[in-house]
Amino acid sequence: MLNKTRLLTPGPTPLPERVRLALARDMIHHRKKDFAAIMDRVQPRLQQLFGTSQPVLPLSSSGTGAMTAAVYGLFSPGEKVLVVVGGKFGERWRNIAASRHLEIQEVTVPWGHAVDPSAVEEVLDRDPEILGVLVQLSETSTGVLHPVQELGAITKKRDCLLVVDGISGVGLSPCPMDKWGIDCLLTGSQKGLMLPPGLALLALSSRAWERAAATEPGCFYFNLPKERNKLAQGQTLFTSPVNLIVGLDESLDMLLENGLEAVYAKQWALTMLTRTGVQAMGLTPYVKERFAWGITSVLVPEGLDGTKLLAIIADRFGVVLAGGQDSLKGRILRIGHMGWVDWADVLGALQAVKSSVIAMGGSCPPGDPLGKAMEAYLAALELPPGTPPPNGN
Amino acid sequence: MLNKTRLLTPGPTPLPERVRLALARDMIHHRKKDFAAIMDRVQPRLQQLFGTSQPVLPLSSSGTGAMTAAVYGLFSPGEKVLVVVGGKFGERWRNIAASRHLEIQEVTVPWGHAVDPSAVEEVLDRDPEILGVLVQLSETSTGVLHPVQELGAITKKRDCLLVVDGISGVGLSPCPMDKWGIDCLLTGSQKGLMLPPGLALLALSSRAWERAAATEPGCFYFNLPKERNKLAQGQTLFTSPVNLIVGLDESLDMLLENGLEAVYAKQWALTMLTRTGVQAMGLTPYVKERFAWGITSVLVPEGLDGTKLLAIIADRFGVVLAGGQDSLKGRILRIGHMGWVDWADVLGALQAVKSSVIAMGGSCPPGDPLGKAMEAYLAALELPPGTPPPNGN
Repeated sequence: MLNKTRLLTPGPTPLPERVRLALARDMIHHRKKDFAAIMDRVQPRLQQLFGTSQPVLPLSSSGTGAMTAAVYGLFSPGEKVLVVVGGKFGERWRNIAASRHLEIQEVTVPWGHAVDPSAVEEVLDRDPEILGVLVQLSETSTGVLHPVQELGAITKKRDCLLVVDGISGVGLSPCPMDKWGIDCLLTGSQKGLMLPPGLALLALSSRAWERAAATEPGCFYFNLPKERNKLAQGQTLFTSPVNLIVGLDESLDMLLENGLEAVYAKQWALTMLTRTGVQAMGLTPYVKERFAWGITSVLVPEGLDGTKLLAIIADRFGVVLAGGQDSLKGRILRIGHMGWVDWADVLGALQAVKSSVIAMGGSCPPGDPLGKAMEAYLAALELPPGTPPPNGN
Repeated sequence: MLNKTRLLTPGPTPLPERVRLALARDMIHHRKKDFAAIMDRVQPRLQQLFGTSQPVLPLSSSGTGAMTAAVYGLFSPGEKVLVVVGGKFGERWRNIAASRHLEIQEVTVPWGHAVDPSAVEEVLDRDPEILGVLVQLSETSTGVLHPVQELGAITKKRDCLLVVDGISGVGLSPCPMDKWGIDCLLTGSQKGLMLPPGLALLALSSRAWERAAATEPGCFYFNLPKERNKLAQGQTLFTSPVNLIVGLDESLDMLLENGLEAVYAKQWALTMLTRTGVQAMGLTPYVKERFAWGITSVLVPEGLDGTKLLAIIADRFGVVLAGGQDSLKGRILRIGHMGWVDWADVLGALQAVKSSVIAMGGSCPPGDPLGKAMEAYLAALELPPGTPPPNGN
């Protein structure tokens, strides 16, 4: 009773009431016309979300399932790919590629930094046998936004597919697939899409479809060409995650009702709010530039135990944040501000962080960090999304 | 307004209100203690459902995902397996085994019949290199119940794993994994478990775990040993289908509140109700013996168009049944009576079938088929589940 729980992690994210009521609807059959009608209604809006004229396939899996589907469906053992590794999910690309017995060229980036497109271009120039570049849009473990648009400009001139994990990026910051020359874009349901986990979405470019058609799929469960054939009938290859598709129908309505630009503007403004707020309370954002629009990572103040800080924020104030993973465990907080989260939720999270730092004996400079944060939010809403603030963030 | 829709297909099945409200709960994080508490609460009840002391792994996939996980996690390319093929899902086992490049010995059974255990034994006697037998508990495409207990008696004496697809069987008829010597039992959420599709469950025997530990998993997304390690922390390897696990917590309460025996007794009695009813209205059950306890297949009367019959049953009476698949398309109706379906729902389905047959110009013998069906139901409830009725069905 004392606190409401506020889930501000970089996924899963809170569910809107409209979506929750849709999830609670009674079951319908996945091979009957009522379901096909929903699939048909969902499809053009998914294409709008992905910025593509290609079909967007729904898969019954987590996001990692879709990453597996991409690697196992586009590349055969022994083929060469370049993997951008600058965090836990870059490592996941590498591990999936290794499990498929691909030859891996790794472009390593220090955690907290975005890849330099020219570093990728150099490797591709040296080795024309590299058939794909695997990268994240948003590297969820650090909060970095990789320069996918610039990478697309490099790969589209070559016989090399750009495969983008957009799990914590799609629906949060722009990633128009066709325009940017992305060959495979995938996401999960539990981030920008405001749904529970368990549904993944994946689209291929026409040249990626050619590759998929010529590749023996490495895993029976993930057969992209057969999924595409079934989609033409408003179905999935195997049993659909029906209630997530019904929920998706609702969440797409919400995402598109004021246009995607309004969603991106909100996400950018929330990012400005969060960064301004944490800086005004004396904390340091972990990512200096090219930060993602749905997650802000913050260094835990020197001398404080990050795991304990996270526990106080949750137990005393009801605000659920994520900590760091692997080498960043205990060293950063990750504040998720994606999906069904608004300015007041984030202000609450900022105050919970501040009060908890002070409760642990840390200090914050005097001033009005929440007021400054709100100013930054309102100012950001007035400018095109992505415009750097006048005072630099 | 005229009709309520009644979903009586062999999966997905209707959702109880308790489950639907659980599915609508707001999101919680899959790596935090609240979720781990649910996972810990669910696990012993899943073990009870499966009849095993081994862990039961939740996977974010359809049932076919779990079938893939079993084949790709227990067998390596070039190894030999025996596949029982007597319907569409036996064919699915074969196709998954082929995609894993296994050497396949097929025991073919005419559709509508159960496999003869001695036919399996003969093949195993001839070829001791066969490392696994893949079979369905309930072959959903026909409504046959394969003799899994008898197969277990054969395989447990050999170095040969018994791998059972229990997708439309678990929670519907007895299948105690440890007692029957089953080495891998798997199911999906959308049948006896009264949940939406999207969650699969899989358990291995101790000797199957040894095999899994010695096998390089064929697909990154399905890594059974790593899943087991994560389960010990109340987590899954990749993002959990959170709201289905929350729903599972509720549906297991319902399934176990009067004991599993009561669930099986109900399922058997519904089966007796359905078979008696269709026979009393002059229709012929497709499966003569060894029929499943959650689905009754019925031959479409000579001269009637089965696809049209199905459409009339749905459009005029709101009763959604399944038709036949592949070579049985248009030739059978499949009445699902599994999960959150009771006697009155099935009586409604029977009446809808009868009225639709008559509407299409077919005839039914005079008499009171629903009354007879109800008598058979009540009589079956008085006897141990599985007891054949005195007049033979």
